[in-house]
Amino acid sequence: MLHWDAAAMMPPGGAEARAEQLATLRVLAHELLVAPEIGDLIAEAEGEQVALGVWESANLREMRRRWLHAAALPGELVEALSRARSECEMQWRRARQASDFRGVSPALDRVLRLTREMATAKAEWLGVAPYEALLDQYEPGGSTALIDALFDEIAGFLPNLLGAILSRQAAESVAPLPSGPFPIAAQRQVGLALMETLGFEMAHGRLDTSAHPFCGGVPDDVRITTRYDESDFTRALMGVLHETGHALYKRGLPSEWRRQPVGAARGMAVHESQSLLIEMQVCRSRAFFAFAAPLLRAAFSGDGPGWDAASLHRRQISVQPGPIRVDADEVTYPAHVILRYRLERAMIADRLAVEDLPEAWAEALGTLIGVVPKNHAEGCLQDIHWYDGAWGYFPTYTLGALIAAQLFAAARESVPDLTEAIAAGEFGPLLTWLRDRVHSRASLLSTTALVEEATGAPLGTAAFERHLRDRYLG
Amino acid sequence: MLHWDAAAMMPPGGAEARAEQLATLRVLAHELLVAPEIGDLIAEAEGEQVALGVWESANLREMRRRWLHAAALPGELVEALSRARSECEMQWRRARQASDFRGVSPALDRVLRLTREMATAKAEWLGVAPYEALLDQYEPGGSTALIDALFDEIAGFLPNLLGAILSRQAAESVAPLPSGPFPIAAQRQVGLALMETLGFEMAHGRLDTSAHPFCGGVPDDVRITTRYDESDFTRALMGVLHETGHALYKRGLPSEWRRQPVGAARGMAVHESQSLLIEMQVCRSRAFFAFAAPLLRAAFSGDGPGWDAASLHRRQISVQPGPIRVDADEVTYPAHVILRYRLERAMIADRLAVEDLPEAWAEALGTLIGVVPKNHAEGCLQDIHWYDGAWGYFPTYTLGALIAAQLFAAARESVPDLTEAIAAGEFGPLLTWLRDRVHSRASLLSTTALVEEATGAPLGTAAFERHLRDRYLG
Repeated sequence: MLHWDAAAMMPPGGAEARAEQLATLRVLAHELLVAPEIGDLIAEAEGEQVALGVWESANLREMRRRWLHAAALPGELVEALSRARSECEMQWRRARQASDFRGVSPALDRVLRLTREMATAKAEWLGVAPYEALLDQYEPGGSTALIDALFDEIAGFLPNLLGAILSRQAAESVAPLPSGPFPIAAQRQVGLALMETLGFEMAHGRLDTSAHPFCGGVPDDVRITTRYDESDFTRALMGVLHETGHALYKRGLPSEWRRQPVGAARGMAVHESQSLLIEMQVCRSRAFFAFAAPLLRAAFSGDGPGWDAASLHRRQISVQPGPIRVDADEVTYPAHVILRYRLERAMIADRLAVEDLPEAWAEALGTLIGVVPKNHAEGCLQDIHWYDGAWGYFPTYTLGALIAAQLFAAARESVPDLTEAIAAGEFGPLLTWLRDRVHSRASLLSTTALVEEATGAPLGTAAFERHLRDRYLG
Repeated sequence: MLHWDAAAMMPPGGAEARAEQLATLRVLAHELLVAPEIGDLIAEAEGEQVALGVWESANLREMRRRWLHAAALPGELVEALSRARSECEMQWRRARQASDFRGVSPALDRVLRLTREMATAKAEWLGVAPYEALLDQYEPGGSTALIDALFDEIAGFLPNLLGAILSRQAAESVAPLPSGPFPIAAQRQVGLALMETLGFEMAHGRLDTSAHPFCGGVPDDVRITTRYDESDFTRALMGVLHETGHALYKRGLPSEWRRQPVGAARGMAVHESQSLLIEMQVCRSRAFFAFAAPLLRAAFSGDGPGWDAASLHRRQISVQPGPIRVDADEVTYPAHVILRYRLERAMIADRLAVEDLPEAWAEALGTLIGVVPKNHAEGCLQDIHWYDGAWGYFPTYTLGALIAAQLFAAARESVPDLTEAIAAGEFGPLLTWLRDRVHSRASLLSTTALVEEATGAPLGTAAFERHLRDRYLG
């Protein structure tokens, strides 16, 4: 709640006090988790595991996992990392502005070395490879063997697929842009109306504004944000729909397991699958715009060309390779992720030096989508993640896209007339399916087991590739 | 921040989760405070007190005080009280609705008995009388001998003074009511503008809406609220001005002592003195309306009678004895407080039984301001305080009014042309004086020492009585 407040409500002069409040709470939470008796209590409970039900058992497993992550790190390393990250993030803000990678690379190198140290320490306690120990912080049980296989498949089909899509698009006329301005109050009303239509209960959440859209809060009080652009209502709207996917997941976590580790979301990949399922699979579909176009036109008193369902839809599925990840469409997005995943693994394994990063970056992006950054700001300085110490996070975006496609394909197979329901603005059947197969399961299963039970097939790239071919070449 | 959020932002469905979050934090904070080593550490520091400066020394004294309050209570009593309060507060909501005192009196009796037990336990540790131990929770070092003397003086002059004021008012014409409606957005803009004019930095706070106006947050991020009535802009406005008084105090606490006990506000009496000084002494004065009337008229595009400074001012100082404390004017307000103070002391001392409360209430109010409640809802059921366990709180309202009058009189003596500055909308000289004499001193001194150092005279009723005579009979 304090993070949400800091992003959505806090006056600028409160920043320093808030940082101290959060640091105090973080230290207290950490101290409680690594108190001497906790390890013993977990071990004792594990000794009696035969008497536990499946949820209790999974809860204990999650407690053990959280405890391992906390207990594996010596206090001095936590402190050194915290300082190195703050320093590096500060330098990164200046360096990105000036497109000056050399200016920040010593600080990044220090973060990398300490992160490697952390990875090694956690790897030993968790019994996995160092990179997997980092990955496990965001994607519990995440395996590089699986990610390598999935990402190699995508990297295999992507260049040709992208070429075909770009040829197809080049042959089509450009959909006209509805003319604004679009008042923020009207954009907000549409966002709220669609949140509710998708199934979010407004008695259990809020929609506010922040510089970067996110989903925060707790399952009974979910706070999402977006940001508004008066010249283009679709940015804020797609932000709201994306965050609504996260919000529905959080809200659907099992109430019997509130505030217990097993009751938390499974991980970042499943979380991202829920936002991408709503945003990409559902709300950028032809069926969705059949429902939403009249509603949008009415909300903005739309007049002139571009307001028909087909035009609105076409603008939402336009593909344009570019150097910036956060601006990327769903076809080229995986290339940005695969690139970062491969580079961060190489850096953690000490196979790639920080100073060689810009060249490796440019080469990999060129191979995948034929784009080369003009400068460092467009290249390896664009994302905060590494500079802020979030190593092992990137692959979860594309794992989420794969899971979203596979879940939505399974939902269409098992829910009769799902596409027709969406075109009619009825999202209840989809939500019921997601609640049952994903949300209510929380952290009971591993990500891969969750996907396999929900869809009847192991996690793969087939549904995602089929989705792209159907949408862009069908 | 979580309390502020609950009142100003939280969706209704978040209430249960929030109650759990707050309970968790409360328990953790309590456990940290009563951890076995804390008492020893305080004693050890006290042994070395000779080396401490005045602020450190005062800080240690405040630590000791907080620790005594926390450590004096056996865990079972804390729990029993917490349950009894929740239960009684719930029953009170129904009972007030139905004006049924008998329905809640057994629950109130249970709260009283447990509160008496708490008072006895704390009294022993603090070395004061039981009622003073309760008072000390809100007004550190508060003395019943002093309060008795002050309140007896007020009770002595009030009936005659009130009679004179009512005669005077009866002879005057009623000031016309400016005609609305007054849009909430315009009311909010005026409130924000006056907050800033009074000296509050908006980079360090917010103004929002809640059912009951309050001031929350921390010194670098002060959150105040008000509530709006579209037919009368003065209610929200006076709410904002009152809370701005609290906010200026909080904001002016010494930054060198953030998050230390000595850096906190002195107590509820001084806090209330700051809100009443701004609201009652400054913003209901003739000088203030000389400045504010044109501004208000412009903000609401005011037209017709009632917008001149004299009319606006007269409506804000209208006196009307009535049974309800929160609707009372500054002349009759002390009567409501004195009544409650005397009755709660009698109940804690076991000299008054809960069942005899309604009769004692009616008799005392009649004597003080000639009003007798029509029913229990208008009488001893009107306030949540006792039912919710807040015994010893009431006297701080009137202590605050006395301190406000005495501080403002001293400020007018020591700041040249203060009234003229206010009439010109210049509040800097007043704020500088308050920062220097009150805000920056935090909990360095006792309330009585603070007042005496700031005003050159011991806390008394003379300034308050003079203020009432000047304003209402002058």
